[in-house]
Amino acid sequence: MAGSWVDLAERIGADLHLDLAGPGGRRAVLTRTLREAVRSGRLAPGTRLPPYRSLAADLGLARNTVADAYAELVAEGWLIARQGSGTVVAHRAAAPRRPPSPSPAAAPARPVRHDLRQGLPDPGSFPRTAWLASARRALTAAPNDAFGPGDPRGRPELRNALAAYLSRARGVQADPDRIVICSGVAHALRLLSGGVVRGPWAVESYGLPFHRSILGAASVRTRPLAIDEHGARTDELAGERAVLLTPAHQFPTGGPLHPERRASVIDWARTKNALVLEDDYDGDFRYDRQPVGALQNLDPERVAYLGSVSKSLSPAVRLGWMVLPGHLVGPVLAAKGEREAWAGVADQLTLADFIEHGAYDRHVRRMRQRYRRRRDQLVQALAPHTTTGIAAGLHAVLNLPAEAEKRALDAAREEGIALDGLSPFRHPEAAMPALNGLVIGYAAAPDHAFAAALDALRRAVG
Amino acid sequence: MAGSWVDLAERIGADLHLDLAGPGGRRAVLTRTLREAVRSGRLAPGTRLPPYRSLAADLGLARNTVADAYAELVAEGWLIARQGSGTVVAHRAAAPRRPPSPSPAAAPARPVRHDLRQGLPDPGSFPRTAWLASARRALTAAPNDAFGPGDPRGRPELRNALAAYLSRARGVQADPDRIVICSGVAHALRLLSGGVVRGPWAVESYGLPFHRSILGAASVRTRPLAIDEHGARTDELAGERAVLLTPAHQFPTGGPLHPERRASVIDWARTKNALVLEDDYDGDFRYDRQPVGALQNLDPERVAYLGSVSKSLSPAVRLGWMVLPGHLVGPVLAAKGEREAWAGVADQLTLADFIEHGAYDRHVRRMRQRYRRRRDQLVQALAPHTTTGIAAGLHAVLNLPAEAEKRALDAAREEGIALDGLSPFRHPEAAMPALNGLVIGYAAAPDHAFAAALDALRRAVG
Repeated sequence: MAGSWVDLAERIGADLHLDLAGPGGRRAVLTRTLREAVRSGRLAPGTRLPPYRSLAADLGLARNTVADAYAELVAEGWLIARQGSGTVVAHRAAAPRRPPSPSPAAAPARPVRHDLRQGLPDPGSFPRTAWLASARRALTAAPNDAFGPGDPRGRPELRNALAAYLSRARGVQADPDRIVICSGVAHALRLLSGGVVRGPWAVESYGLPFHRSILGAASVRTRPLAIDEHGARTDELAGERAVLLTPAHQFPTGGPLHPERRASVIDWARTKNALVLEDDYDGDFRYDRQPVGALQNLDPERVAYLGSVSKSLSPAVRLGWMVLPGHLVGPVLAAKGEREAWAGVADQLTLADFIEHGAYDRHVRRMRQRYRRRRDQLVQALAPHTTTGIAAGLHAVLNLPAEAEKRALDAAREEGIALDGLSPFRHPEAAMPALNGLVIGYAAAPDHAFAAALDALRRAVG
Repeated sequence: MAGSWVDLAERIGADLHLDLAGPGGRRAVLTRTLREAVRSGRLAPGTRLPPYRSLAADLGLARNTVADAYAELVAEGWLIARQGSGTVVAHRAAAPRRPPSPSPAAAPARPVRHDLRQGLPDPGSFPRTAWLASARRALTAAPNDAFGPGDPRGRPELRNALAAYLSRARGVQADPDRIVICSGVAHALRLLSGGVVRGPWAVESYGLPFHRSILGAASVRTRPLAIDEHGARTDELAGERAVLLTPAHQFPTGGPLHPERRASVIDWARTKNALVLEDDYDGDFRYDRQPVGALQNLDPERVAYLGSVSKSLSPAVRLGWMVLPGHLVGPVLAAKGEREAWAGVADQLTLADFIEHGAYDRHVRRMRQRYRRRRDQLVQALAPHTTTGIAAGLHAVLNLPAEAEKRALDAAREEGIALDGLSPFRHPEAAMPALNGLVIGYAAAPDHAFAAALDALRRAVG
């Protein structure tokens, strides 16, 4: 047990005198230092942190500063606060959500033999040949000014191609002049929360911790909406300025937002002059049920639609888009900067060609077939356990009692499986009953290794 | 004259009730609103703003809030504060430093017939064929994991290629493990100022306003060092935590930092435990004089070396790099985020191949010859006026008396020439005597239009 800053500093290799006057403030410096120590493994899972009062006294900080830093790291899933037993480093804190890092600073992680992390497409399926063909056509045809300083809205070729695609595939009302290209949904949230759309925002009680961190870093307060079998409880919306939703496929629990709730969230936004942020993170991958079109279609002046190629193509292609209400285009461009600083023009032009030549549709269709097959194999492998949220996306949820989640995760770790439980996705202020279980990504593993991953998972789940 | 918020709001099309409770605070909202109005041309050059006291009273704000917003915009070059005659919108405020924008919100700018803006390479010279050949080789050879979530340090292929190139071409002591890829020097400054290197920073009295804005947005105070014929006056360094320099080719005045000052800035950093940030923005383009290697070579633990392909290849390729002292690698990665969110893997792998196959060297050599020829034509066209700062880079400086700068800029505008004077580059708190003249970029114009641009410039200068 680390009872003081001296012990803790020794453990994490920090200077005894933290440079607390740095920009971002004391809380930010302390939070970063502790997060990095957990991330790198210098603070091992299960390590108990000093009580915040002791640490505050050691460092000459206000107790609130330390308590806030702890709370932020709990919210992000790095730490766990247990009534009566203090604050400890989370087991396998956040590790499954990031790539096996070759960083020399990171402690060697338990070797990952089976990749069942959510949110990642199969990196071996990236359509290299078709992508290169598009790159050749696009870079050859581009006007010279494409290689000058970029328009912060993004290349017109890409905005035109996206407007047509999103309208056809997702029912988005997409005027190219209202599309702003960005490097991904995280970048979109950074821009929107960083001064464009004021807080507080309502969010879903289960969602990506790393989205909550982005909002937290921009000092946007978030209020969790409960989730039930019809999706987010939109009747809980009140005086928030915006709501961030995953209407097509609630992340991570997996259901679509009920049609009545789709209507009611738009009514709320109109009545309260608020904004709906629609994160359409895996809208291209639907299997069994009727397509669920974009919520944005109901009211393009009240909904900002966000998407990217991270799941349809690869997270290594840093391209995303916002389809914005007219009044937000100017403020978002102002936040983005005078010139395009984030999305390379070669990728933008290539994706435009890739969409217009039908290669994007072909790739999505091919991946949809493959992922559907994998999903069926997964469901079969886990029977008689019931998996839910399987009508769309790249992951399924195996619901378990609370103790069983922990047990299954431990067993999975022993089997060398990288995957998440449901608990880290829970908003720290969520009031709804806890959901427990495994979030099983079936897209990332290479084809030849998928059967073995399922075998290992079956052993872990028992 | 806009005497009140009502007049001003009408002029800039703002809601009469500014949403001042947004994130970032009242000052930030007001600053953004006014900046956007100037940028878009809704507030025309020469427009007089209401006195800050009146605006504060109209909006119910503290006077300091409005005065600070004005001061920030003066610092960024959007506004000019004149003793006795109030605050007015700068003439051609910042316009020459951004691309002709097709934004529907922007007022139609005076048509630009001749592009003599500094800082931009010729977009028509982008090596499309060689770049595509590298893309094909690189994407074909890449391991599958290249298309998974990216390492925040950047691809090892690119870091290895850069380490070899920077060592050979710029004398940088570059260990691939100390290189972090980013989207450009602006991104590097955002990361370093946003919590990694505390303020205040010393900067050069003349430099890019947009770099100062980035530091300002991160609440890093800047203190200007005077510049003389030997570069920045390093003897003025005091208790700052860092200094941002352009040692190879002072931007924009054009001289190299004197060897004694190179040594003294390293001594200062060692004595004060401070950091030197070396912006090697155009280090690849040297013409007449002996190469000036990277300052970083003198002490890699005290100097962070920053560079990008914006001038050597194209600002549309969003790739830059930092070569960092060991102790900064972790904090910069923590600031960057858990995954690569900014630099696309295709560009990274392509640039790595492009460097390793010698295509980068060949391109730089070819452009160096072309730019040297253009520089000679420029010097000749302007004789008997004397141009300075011509031993390197993509621009020259024509020094003029203060009134003559204004006259020459007006005449250039009449000729349809886009270019900058020296004044907008001056730090608002600079104490050194003012420098005046024209900053003439000779790289951006297409080959066929360069002679006509020089003719127009000669007429403008008289």
